[in-house]
Amino acid sequence: MGLNFTHETLGQRLLFGSGKAAINVAEEVARQGSRKVMLVATSLESEIVRTVTSRISIALTCDDVVQHVPIEGAEAARKAATDNGIDLIISVGGGSATGLAKAIALTTGIPILAVATTYAGSEATNVWGLTEATRKTTGSDIKVLPVAVVYDAQLTYSLPVDLSIASGMNAIAHCIDSMWAPGADPINQALATEGIRALASGLPMILRNPSGERGRELALYGAYLSAASFASAGSGMHHKICHVLGGTYRLPHAQTHASVLPYVLAFNAPFAEEANQRIAYALGASSGLEGLNLLRAALNVPTGLKDLGFEESNIEEASEIIFPLIPESNPRKVSRENLIELLHTAWAGETPVSNDER
Amino acid sequence: MGLNFTHETLGQRLLFGSGKAAINVAEEVARQGSRKVMLVATSLESEIVRTVTSRISIALTCDDVVQHVPIEGAEAARKAATDNGIDLIISVGGGSATGLAKAIALTTGIPILAVATTYAGSEATNVWGLTEATRKTTGSDIKVLPVAVVYDAQLTYSLPVDLSIASGMNAIAHCIDSMWAPGADPINQALATEGIRALASGLPMILRNPSGERGRELALYGAYLSAASFASAGSGMHHKICHVLGGTYRLPHAQTHASVLPYVLAFNAPFAEEANQRIAYALGASSGLEGLNLLRAALNVPTGLKDLGFEESNIEEASEIIFPLIPESNPRKVSRENLIELLHTAWAGETPVSNDER
Repeated sequence: MGLNFTHETLGQRLLFGSGKAAINVAEEVARQGSRKVMLVATSLESEIVRTVTSRISIALTCDDVVQHVPIEGAEAARKAATDNGIDLIISVGGGSATGLAKAIALTTGIPILAVATTYAGSEATNVWGLTEATRKTTGSDIKVLPVAVVYDAQLTYSLPVDLSIASGMNAIAHCIDSMWAPGADPINQALATEGIRALASGLPMILRNPSGERGRELALYGAYLSAASFASAGSGMHHKICHVLGGTYRLPHAQTHASVLPYVLAFNAPFAEEANQRIAYALGASSGLEGLNLLRAALNVPTGLKDLGFEESNIEEASEIIFPLIPESNPRKVSRENLIELLHTAWAGETPVSNDER
Repeated sequence: MGLNFTHETLGQRLLFGSGKAAINVAEEVARQGSRKVMLVATSLESEIVRTVTSRISIALTCDDVVQHVPIEGAEAARKAATDNGIDLIISVGGGSATGLAKAIALTTGIPILAVATTYAGSEATNVWGLTEATRKTTGSDIKVLPVAVVYDAQLTYSLPVDLSIASGMNAIAHCIDSMWAPGADPINQALATEGIRALASGLPMILRNPSGERGRELALYGAYLSAASFASAGSGMHHKICHVLGGTYRLPHAQTHASVLPYVLAFNAPFAEEANQRIAYALGASSGLEGLNLLRAALNVPTGLKDLGFEESNIEEASEIIFPLIPESNPRKVSRENLIELLHTAWAGETPVSNDER
């Protein structure tokens, strides 16, 4: 890749420390000079929230946390925040809690301190989303980027193993797709490489011991890098395929990602040598694909789309919808024919093989 | 390393593009909505400055660019900037030009757009420095971090080859020392790894062809990463040694770095396995030390401190000055004895060998 790119590094203070969430949150509140904190969390009474807020005082709480951030809830929370002179929003949770905090910040400009308890990664981006009726609007604004993020692996012990692995594989998919998405650049690629490295080490540890600190730390750290690189690089071929399969054919999100990923990697790798080398290094294998296949086997990740309820008869139609969405930046030229072939092998769950036909 | 760290990511817009400096500068001026630009550069009439500013209008110029930023010049430039209602400072040059721009921004808050024409890296940090009489004061402040940086490899073609190699090796030393400096964290390590990778590819290309675009691009990109990781990680053992050798014994800065680096790497590597693996990967070698020795040989970098004018009889005294400066974070425990041994091998220029005595 020629070094011809614009990269926006988002300024943020990251505080990593297992068992240190309460201390780090209190330190950040003091650092911000905040006097009126609003807490946003799914459940205000959870053990996690009690732990996180044990060293600070909270002026206002909001637990109206709903997926996709409905506008009504956001408006009410915004009004409550301004009426109460809130000067810092602390969100505790995954994408939905962070999402509501962002919706408040978007119009009020109140800074966010995010405590991330899943691998969703929203806390590392300046992307917001709001739903009015059934229509979702998204955008990006520096105001919604949390000024600080607290990561404490101990807060993630209760994430179910299945969900952890699926969410972690999804994060790996973000990293790999960052290698050739429209906004791909070497800085994103380096961060994504580090993300794959951390996730590929951490996820098998979680499978063996869901409450082991090291595995949880690595996965949380990898999920952060995945979000940071993906937010900058944007969606590549892999995500375009998965969004159509998920949206049009209602396939389950995380499993679809895990199934499709090696086929996209096999498809692109021979045409993206540097990316393949980075992925191979991150996975400790001689090629990216070999490493990914080994990791999937170690994690018992599903293989064929047919096992997820996708019908072979839909491949033709799906390829029609997907084809025009593939970004120009994709390293291998995509045709209807090779796209159909990719979907066929992914449907059957055949061992993905790189087929170098330049 | 446990994942227990605080990392401050500095928000900045980076515009890389060979031959695109004028376009990128004009785009950024428009993006900032700037109406009164102050240009800071060593020579206002240079070809580089003419190229860079060819698509914008300049309201005020300042070429009082002196090493270490004397306070008198800074005060005059600050006054000129505020008197003229300047809303954007554009610096064109290396560390001294960026340094003066930072001095102006420090008290006025005027944003900086930096055009970097050397491998100094100051444009990627929030560190400022000022000299009053002979006393240098430094500090860090987010106000002095350029909001945007333009990197154009074509502006660096005229950097002499010797200086380019020396400065590039210095940048590699920053990257390697970032692996174990007091503020070392995996994000710095990942950025430093990418920096070594780019510099180790680029520098031999520059030696072969000083005006080759690819080598210059890689070195400039690597120098950026070196500064970003080093600014966050701080000085490690290597820099403490070199600053004493440079300050007390007047050894030449860049050559001293190049001479000492492999001995510090050999010293620490057996006690810093992950760092060693990262460096090995970045250098495409089986170990960090092997890779560094090969690179130094390819670049004809000086080996022994004795060839730089350092006296063997000064080793004892130097070790006394250096010893208390070694950071706690150093992976291998440093004693007066092993420090003297390190300085002896570095003085003699013996092939550096890792000596694993835990």
